[in-house]
Amino acid sequence: MGPPSSFHLQNVRIKSDHAVGITVRDGVIAAITDDPSEKPADFAAIDGANGLVLPALVDGHMHVDKTLFGQPWLPYPAGPDRESRIETEKELRSQFPVPVEERAAALLRQVITTGTGALRTHVDVDLPIGLAHMHAVLALRERFKDLLDIQIVAFPQSGIVRCPGMAELLDAAVAEGADLVGGIDPIGFDEDLEGHYDVIFGIAERHEIGIDIHLHDAGPTGVEELEALIARTRAAGLEGQVTASHAFCVGGCDEPTFERLAAGLAETRIPIATHGGGASPLPPVKKLRDRGAAIFSGNDNIRDTWTPYGNGDMLERAMLTAWRSGFRTDGDLEIALDLASGAGAKALGLEGHGLDVGCAADFFVVDADTPAHAVADRPVRRLVFKRGRLVARDGALTEAAEAALR
Amino acid sequence: MGPPSSFHLQNVRIKSDHAVGITVRDGVIAAITDDPSEKPADFAAIDGANGLVLPALVDGHMHVDKTLFGQPWLPYPAGPDRESRIETEKELRSQFPVPVEERAAALLRQVITTGTGALRTHVDVDLPIGLAHMHAVLALRERFKDLLDIQIVAFPQSGIVRCPGMAELLDAAVAEGADLVGGIDPIGFDEDLEGHYDVIFGIAERHEIGIDIHLHDAGPTGVEELEALIARTRAAGLEGQVTASHAFCVGGCDEPTFERLAAGLAETRIPIATHGGGASPLPPVKKLRDRGAAIFSGNDNIRDTWTPYGNGDMLERAMLTAWRSGFRTDGDLEIALDLASGAGAKALGLEGHGLDVGCAADFFVVDADTPAHAVADRPVRRLVFKRGRLVARDGALTEAAEAALR
Repeated sequence: MGPPSSFHLQNVRIKSDHAVGITVRDGVIAAITDDPSEKPADFAAIDGANGLVLPALVDGHMHVDKTLFGQPWLPYPAGPDRESRIETEKELRSQFPVPVEERAAALLRQVITTGTGALRTHVDVDLPIGLAHMHAVLALRERFKDLLDIQIVAFPQSGIVRCPGMAELLDAAVAEGADLVGGIDPIGFDEDLEGHYDVIFGIAERHEIGIDIHLHDAGPTGVEELEALIARTRAAGLEGQVTASHAFCVGGCDEPTFERLAAGLAETRIPIATHGGGASPLPPVKKLRDRGAAIFSGNDNIRDTWTPYGNGDMLERAMLTAWRSGFRTDGDLEIALDLASGAGAKALGLEGHGLDVGCAADFFVVDADTPAHAVADRPVRRLVFKRGRLVARDGALTEAAEAALR
Repeated sequence: MGPPSSFHLQNVRIKSDHAVGITVRDGVIAAITDDPSEKPADFAAIDGANGLVLPALVDGHMHVDKTLFGQPWLPYPAGPDRESRIETEKELRSQFPVPVEERAAALLRQVITTGTGALRTHVDVDLPIGLAHMHAVLALRERFKDLLDIQIVAFPQSGIVRCPGMAELLDAAVAEGADLVGGIDPIGFDEDLEGHYDVIFGIAERHEIGIDIHLHDAGPTGVEELEALIARTRAAGLEGQVTASHAFCVGGCDEPTFERLAAGLAETRIPIATHGGGASPLPPVKKLRDRGAAIFSGNDNIRDTWTPYGNGDMLERAMLTAWRSGFRTDGDLEIALDLASGAGAKALGLEGHGLDVGCAADFFVVDADTPAHAVADRPVRRLVFKRGRLVARDGALTEAAEAALR
């Protein structure tokens, strides 16, 4: 896609009514000024038409290899429980007429047009597929590298202890390029808390990588899993390297338990990844942040055998998280937006996210009065920039972005 | 707008993959056929381009006089409780630069473009505004009569017993044309259960109209209010004429209480109107329907001093209600859609709603494989018909609809 560009985006707003210009040099925000004469003479001007600039969205929890986005409608095919969903997906995925690469690529294109600049996706490491999905997503990460930053979690969807050979497969997935190792419900699904953690902490320590584990179990089972995660993180010295995805148990527990969990999460710097709860107990966003514990958001499954919902838009996810949390004020809506951008960037360890001088020029322009307005309204993303390159406009990839994908 | 039209909508689908044509005669569905030769020779053909036809959406609970839809963003201005919201709105509404008629009309135009064909709106009857909002919405009902069926509830936002003169104002509002009388939290807000019900049941019986009351109170207070509503409905012989809006108490109660309430609601034919719950306890949709109790949906407040959310789209409301309910199967998503269309029509007592021969030609066309797909995707409404007249296309009113509003 050629080198990151230099330009001057003029007539835009950042949070306020005040029009500014943003000078981008070599893909980095070099200056923000309200004096039009400060545009570098040799820099092309791009007119922002009084739009609002927001920093790139971060989708902190996806499953791009599962998606049927852009495919004909598939009615939800599974039974009502986790076990059935896992078995049904195994049965059906071998029959999908379109390969993983193509389905996932359609979703990646979509998320770029909605202003997402970075994402973390869990990728099934499973039998009988082995590392096939991992190889597909590793190839997509390379293909999309100028348009999106992609983190990959090696995800043992079918469990580890109950699935002989899975520990070795996860290890191989990380050796081949996965950024983190995943896990799933050590008690409620894998039925061996210590055995499950032995494997994933072993891989994390051996390869010096992080962990991002699915914890769906609610109630005392979930609490036991999460407390053990906190303890193992502390014991392994992996503070700041571990994520608890979903952690519904934090949304439904009593006050003393909540305070104990929140303190443990804060101390070990384990953030929670949430999709906003839906019918499940949503961890209390503001209470967690007040206790110094982090929470960020992700779209999770998008139109696949697990769920009929989703369109890849993290502004919509921010709205859902805010609505589900009972947020009304601009400050609260900005918290929901932070979960979908800044807090996600921090949880993923991304450098240079934001709208300050020195940050990467990863941002987008919308017609909205304020950031809170953008969350409520979810307007079309007029201009989307990644490292200073215009990658999408009005809901479609630019020609330059299309060229980068060829 | 001239008489309802006659035409033949060809190449559309109803639920299935099977292409059919819909013959509309004088604004009524006259025939549905899969034989193209059955198009009446003198009827104009409209090409549905293989779109899916869905019956008109019904927004069963709105507050169109409160909306700031289309206005510059107003950050949520109130405190965290009901009392503050009521007082803040009173303070601010006199300062809005745009009158009720214009604000509400912008929202009505929007809902038409999203496929809503009928709605019930609560309208503030309050001090010091008196009947000013009521007069504005009565005028809009007349102005929009060819495009939308509008039911009006005279709504005592500031309470009745605690607000001297309100009983008389409500009575006057009904005398001037409101279709139903409203109420609000008889114990939790008005602090006089029997006094509150005496007024609204008195007006309902005197004018032979229905009741639609806001019951926000959760827990035992809400249960007491709802049980009293059921008992008073039975005593007054108003079965089928009363609606309980929100009824959060039904979402958070224990099993025996739920069963008692559900049985009472079913027996007295009191439906619940819901906006999907958000952070509040959502009444359990399928359990209520299983018990023979009705539930339907509405957007409730849309971008006003009460809430930053909302865009008037009942397909989005169906998605939110489904997501909040944990629905995944097509059957369940169709239930959420029914809440936003057929169940709403039934609760509002509308005749001729649906896609059967003999029904009013109130329907819209979208690009979706199935009704469940339309709920998940919320695609643009390509063609919207009201009594056989094309009132909106691709998100904008048609010229004929614009002309009808002049």
